[in-house]
Amino acid sequence: MPKLSLPRPGARALVVGLATTGLAFTAGVAVAGPAVTSPAQLATHGGATRLDGDQTKKVRNAVEGGKAKNVILLIGDGMGDSEITSARNYQFGADGRFPGIDGLPLTGQYTTFSLDQETGRPDYVTDSAASGSGWATGTKTYNGAISVDVKGERQVSLLELAKKRGLKTGNITTSEIQDATPAVEGAHVTARSCYGPVATTKTCPTNALENGGAGSITEQLLKTRADITMGGGEKTFAETATAGRFKDLTLAQQAQVRGYQVVRTDAELAAIKKADQKKPVLGLFASGNLPVQWAGPAATKDGATKDAVRCTPNPDLPATQPQLAAMTQKSIDLLKNKKGFFLQVEGASIDKQDHAANACGQIGETVAFDQAVKVALDFAKRDGNTSVFVTADHGHTSQIVETGTSTPGLTVTLETADQAPMTLSYGTAPEGGSQEHTGTQVRIAGYGPQAANVVGLTDQTDLHFTIARALGLKTPAKG
Amino acid sequence: MPKLSLPRPGARALVVGLATTGLAFTAGVAVAGPAVTSPAQLATHGGATRLDGDQTKKVRNAVEGGKAKNVILLIGDGMGDSEITSARNYQFGADGRFPGIDGLPLTGQYTTFSLDQETGRPDYVTDSAASGSGWATGTKTYNGAISVDVKGERQVSLLELAKKRGLKTGNITTSEIQDATPAVEGAHVTARSCYGPVATTKTCPTNALENGGAGSITEQLLKTRADITMGGGEKTFAETATAGRFKDLTLAQQAQVRGYQVVRTDAELAAIKKADQKKPVLGLFASGNLPVQWAGPAATKDGATKDAVRCTPNPDLPATQPQLAAMTQKSIDLLKNKKGFFLQVEGASIDKQDHAANACGQIGETVAFDQAVKVALDFAKRDGNTSVFVTADHGHTSQIVETGTSTPGLTVTLETADQAPMTLSYGTAPEGGSQEHTGTQVRIAGYGPQAANVVGLTDQTDLHFTIARALGLKTPAKG
Repeated sequence: MPKLSLPRPGARALVVGLATTGLAFTAGVAVAGPAVTSPAQLATHGGATRLDGDQTKKVRNAVEGGKAKNVILLIGDGMGDSEITSARNYQFGADGRFPGIDGLPLTGQYTTFSLDQETGRPDYVTDSAASGSGWATGTKTYNGAISVDVKGERQVSLLELAKKRGLKTGNITTSEIQDATPAVEGAHVTARSCYGPVATTKTCPTNALENGGAGSITEQLLKTRADITMGGGEKTFAETATAGRFKDLTLAQQAQVRGYQVVRTDAELAAIKKADQKKPVLGLFASGNLPVQWAGPAATKDGATKDAVRCTPNPDLPATQPQLAAMTQKSIDLLKNKKGFFLQVEGASIDKQDHAANACGQIGETVAFDQAVKVALDFAKRDGNTSVFVTADHGHTSQIVETGTSTPGLTVTLETADQAPMTLSYGTAPEGGSQEHTGTQVRIAGYGPQAANVVGLTDQTDLHFTIARALGLKTPAKG
Repeated sequence: MPKLSLPRPGARALVVGLATTGLAFTAGVAVAGPAVTSPAQLATHGGATRLDGDQTKKVRNAVEGGKAKNVILLIGDGMGDSEITSARNYQFGADGRFPGIDGLPLTGQYTTFSLDQETGRPDYVTDSAASGSGWATGTKTYNGAISVDVKGERQVSLLELAKKRGLKTGNITTSEIQDATPAVEGAHVTARSCYGPVATTKTCPTNALENGGAGSITEQLLKTRADITMGGGEKTFAETATAGRFKDLTLAQQAQVRGYQVVRTDAELAAIKKADQKKPVLGLFASGNLPVQWAGPAATKDGATKDAVRCTPNPDLPATQPQLAAMTQKSIDLLKNKKGFFLQVEGASIDKQDHAANACGQIGETVAFDQAVKVALDFAKRDGNTSVFVTADHGHTSQIVETGTSTPGLTVTLETADQAPMTLSYGTAPEGGSQEHTGTQVRIAGYGPQAANVVGLTDQTDLHFTIARALGLKTPAKG
């Protein structure tokens, strides 16, 4: 068993964390949460229970039918049950609770499979594109598809339906805004890589403007015109439209002509007073994906046998980069209105750091995502007429294994909030390769009207109809 | 991508399955379940949804407070969400449903961590002993402990509490009856390996009869005297008691003297008419663990790249071995009485086959376990006063990965009910080693009074209090 790096009394105060409020990353400040139960208490009869007596009444009260004025959908990309558990262990202890993720009263599991484009039969491991298309449009499709069906036909998204009904809309992420999860709400292309005109001409010819298509993901997002679109991905805006009204203008120029308020820092975002169809907000906080919150050693062959380590703040995190929780709060503030809103929030880099076998990166993003969930849930509770759904688009590689054991994959041992060592293993790709998504069913949780529709076993595509029903959106009849 | 072995129209009829009723394994008979949705239908808008409209009312109706006359607790050992999903994909298709496992209306996740015996801090990967002790007694303990706390002190189990209240009790499994999961309901020893007097003298000296202890697991199970105890593990009964009333008798002789009806085949079990304190039933259907239902290729390095295969019936499965579903049905028939009963049912070899990287073994046991769940659920629905809980004791290694890809671990590709290839990867131990448990939170599902207490995030130890509350058992106050 690896030694702990430092036997520290009162380690909770030293836990690397994210401020619960405010925009900046604050090292050394613990996230609010229950104190870690003492070992002596944990070992007693009933010392590790989470429930305070019978919760039947509480669960019954949480089951609300009817309509919601607002819906906030939060996606932890690649946030399977294993990823949730390891992040909880690290940040709050095994006996702890996420203030956001664990705060939703109704829970279930959903299936995430996609379809093989050639055979139409299930593809048991989805990517984020097919997966997102599933909840956005209610239609199963192939890996790589952005809100088109297996034949490449456009399927209408929740955000588009909400906009059509006169609701305000927002779409925010920690990835490039053109990445699959945000893209599925505002674009329809045959391949997820078609971020800009260059890739679209080459890879998605039927979508290319010059061929009479609707254009690249970026161009379609601009045209879909959510009241708020925020994340990274500024680099694609340097590309130039190939045809149509904005021919020969860069996409950045196009955004200006279309009346977008473009913001690039937390201060600029804070200064925004309004986001509407006249002046929608376009937040571009990085050239590519947003830098992640935490750093730490990548998992390696036999990494488990080394001393347990703590995660550290990512030294390359720009001080001006808004946190996902702050972006969520600001979006809610800007979207609140009499008719209601639909907001999608993605914690994108849980997945990306899992691909990279970077446990600290993955956990830091999960903790940051949880804070966004907390913001959404707090608003919903105050508002009384808002549903919140929290789920993942697919499972991922990381597994919690016996402390200190090497596996055929890559391992790393972290020191958790319990002051105990936790070993994670990444076993689906060799060192330097990209760890894979997995096909497991994943957790879905809900709060507010229609949240009971996450309970039990559902499919990703059910979430489309659940949210449509909650908001009274007119989705096409089932095929 | 590996080729499918046989492109067969109407493959469902050929699916290797288990008869839904009756004792014998029946090759070539499909398990009852919804037909696999056609690829054309799956690809339509709403074609893959599982819900038929708003289920708010259904969920609300499923939330029942109050007491249950009977509780049936079914444990799929090592049956994490990944294991559930791969078995469903194989047997019913990605869009299919387990008749039992997926039939419980209320669902959640629970944490399974154990405690380090030395430090008292969390051990993030539990074994079946600590895990079972958690729900059986409500007390967290160390890996290897059988219903004793971290100090080795006896903690009372649900089965013992139920018996004390005058309920009838049953404890059935596909493993040795002395294995951790059945043992936690009827024995209290410091190490799970103390099956009989020999091991107890050596490994659990404080529990040894000759030292004034309560004896080995087998001896304690005999003394606890559930009305029904069934599984494998006959070989330990050849050992001889070291002290006390039964000194120098074998444990088999002791069982006779104690008045047990010992049965060894399905026919002998079928002939039993009564199980009570006067003549409790002891089913010993194998020397060790019960042979598993299905056979198939073990996962190997680069096994994923071979052609997809179907599982086959295990040729070494004795025709006289009762199925878990049949054992469950018979137990219910024998335990039904005015005062009520508590029955624990374990599908033990999902775990054991996952350890062995044997995908077909694992899936066959999951399907067989599901049939036991279906039996329990059907009874509960007819009875109207029975709660059913279904969960796992911990997650396990197997992961569904991209079809045909090799991982650093061991892989195998199976042909599913969808007539599509599914690749499983085992990446926590090298070839020939034992694949590990994992520390992920796992699914828990419930039906009937108090089932709402599985919704949201709970801990394994909460289940003890939930079942105690449902049955009105007097468990000690929380420490």
